[in-house]
Amino acid sequence: MQAPELAVSQWFNTPAPITLAGLRGRVVMLHAFQMLCPGCVAHGTPQAQRADALFRNSDLSVISLHTVFEYHAAMTPVSLEAFIHEYRLTFPIGVDRAGEDGPIPVTMARYEMRGTPTAILIGRDGRIRHHGFGQEDDMALGAFIGALLAEPAP
Amino acid sequence: MQAPELAVSQWFNTPAPITLAGLRGRVVMLHAFQMLCPGCVAHGTPQAQRADALFRNSDLSVISLHTVFEYHAAMTPVSLEAFIHEYRLTFPIGVDRAGEDGPIPVTMARYEMRGTPTAILIGRDGRIRHHGFGQEDDMALGAFIGALLAEPAP
Amino acid sequence: MQAPELAVSQWFNTPAPITLAGLRGRVVMLHAFQMLCPGCVAHGTPQAQRADALFRNSDLSVISLHTVFEYHAAMTPVSLEAFIHEYRLTFPIGVDRAGEDGPIPVTMARYEMRGTPTAILIGRDGRIRHHGFGQEDDMALGAFIGALLAEPAP
Amino acid sequence: MQAPELAVSQWFNTPAPITLAGLRGRVVMLHAFQMLCPGCVAHGTPQAQRADALFRNSDLSVISLHTVFEYHAAMTPVSLEAFIHEYRLTFPIGVDRAGEDGPIPVTMARYEMRGTPTAILIGRDGRIRHHGFGQEDDMALGAFIGALLAEPAP
Repeated sequence: MQAPELAVSQWFNTPAPITLAGLRGRVVMLHAFQMLCPGCVAHGTPQAQRADALFRNSDLSVISLHTVFEYHAAMTPVSLEAFIHEYRLTFPIGVDRAGEDGPIPVTMARYEMRGTPTAILIGRDGRIRHHGFGQEDDMALGAFIGALLAEPAP
Repeated sequence: MQAPELAVSQWFNTPAPITLAGLRGRVVMLHAFQMLCPGCVAHGTPQAQRADALFRNSDLSVISLHTVFEYHAAMTPVSLEAFIHEYRLTFPIGVDRAGEDGPIPVTMARYEMRGTPTAILIGRDGRIRHHGFGQEDDMALGAFIGALLAEPAP
Repeated sequence: MQAPELAVSQWFNTPAPITLAGLRGRVVMLHAFQMLCPGCVAHGTPQAQRADALFRNSDLSVISLHTVFEYHAAMTPVSLEAFIHEYRLTFPIGVDRAGEDGPIPVTMARYEMRGTPTAILIGRDGRIRHHGFGQEDDMALGAFIGALLAEPAP
Repeated sequence: MQAPELAVSQWFNTPAPITLAGLRGRVVMLHAFQMLCPGCVAHGTPQAQRADALFRNSDLSVISLHTVFEYHAAMTPVSLEAFIHEYRLTFPIGVDRAGEDGPIPVTMARYEMRGTPTAILIGRDGRIRHHGFGQEDDMALGAFIGALLAEPAP
């Protein structure tokens, strides 16, 4: 399945908005989290940071999405900004655009994510190649990324 | 030094406000934290939870204080309530009363805390017996508590 | 119950043999392990090392016993000596004397230990005050030790 | 560099001796360890177990070598067998053949290993593609393996 475009209302840690279209040809790891989700704070987000550091000089881009689908008043961009600063997060983080008809934000709905943390891998061809919910094993994630990076650019 | 009284603007997880005066004769562990402090989330708060569970049937009371001294707009009671629910915290948590002259809340100033997490142990006699800042070793903390519980009530 | 005396065929990390009689008045932590017991290597022995370091300047003595009750040919003193060196163990370690009638060594039988790791705490009065089998919580162990150290010498 | 053949004096966990020649076309992870090496027990060997479980249905073969280069009397096959049983190791483990002129065993010398743990990855073409000494990151190791598995058989 072709990866849908991101819908982001506000970006942190990037000088300009990021689109998947602009990353075509690269492998993309999409890390969706909520700042008050314990499994994200303990596992998902540190793992995304490790991936960002490990593959810094490769063709992988680690992009993070704050997909708030509960406690909206508790996880505003003001709180998120403090969280990003306190946890020393350095990869680009987009605030998933609020949904019009319910609590689920737009990108989260487009990707049919089941919750947070979610890790999605998009190949050089722009297709979704892995869609994982919950705690992801480091070695398994590395193997997925290694295989995708080994593919030739389209 | 006699432990100063708590100044709390709002309580969670307790049917009635708590005072140190009302706990006299018991040993008290005061756990001060901020919900966006990584060292609190990773170490201090889980340790307070473990202490609360371990000494549940003893004369120890574990009381927590949300001592916000930075990013006040990011750590409001609304955000704290979601944090408490998401992290399944069950011990009493008081919001340290905002200071009048600066960012430091009242109880934090009274105890001259240096930051978060802080763990303070108060003996049965109401005196401060341990005042620790930062990551505290489980075995060392246990030894302090065990010794204080072994003291006779005044 | 009064703690039975140790029966040791060979000592490591001590200039002279150790007896409980000689330690009377002090609190003793007896750590029984086998060098090929995974729970000892991962939890029990590192915990005994932490206790030894934490209470170094107190009245606690941490004494270790190699209580081999299985795979005797695989855990000889020659292998144990390499283990002690490789794992940088510095507390006194005694080889529990082989039993005459079966695989269980003498001290292990005297204390009716159920397996390894076992942690036993002996009070200043020479009596057994705690007898734990398996993984022991650091904070709980600390509390036991702290309470025993708080007791006056007999 | 073409991977030299293994020199093994005794195998565990395999019905028949294993040769690299017989594995040609597959990716091979060679895990070299010593049963009394703390870094092996804590990190290297559990990682090899995770790799074996994770890639069980792929073209990866995890082969382990007991490369004893110190404390030979402490790490005999008798002790190794108890270690394998106690740690529930299930992948094939070969005892690296003793060297004729010194403490370094034959395969360890052929591969010029610097110590234990060592992780070596051999591609489908039989060439050494990764040669790592010490603690290896799970995600990085996964990426190496994923890339090698993605290569076509020669």
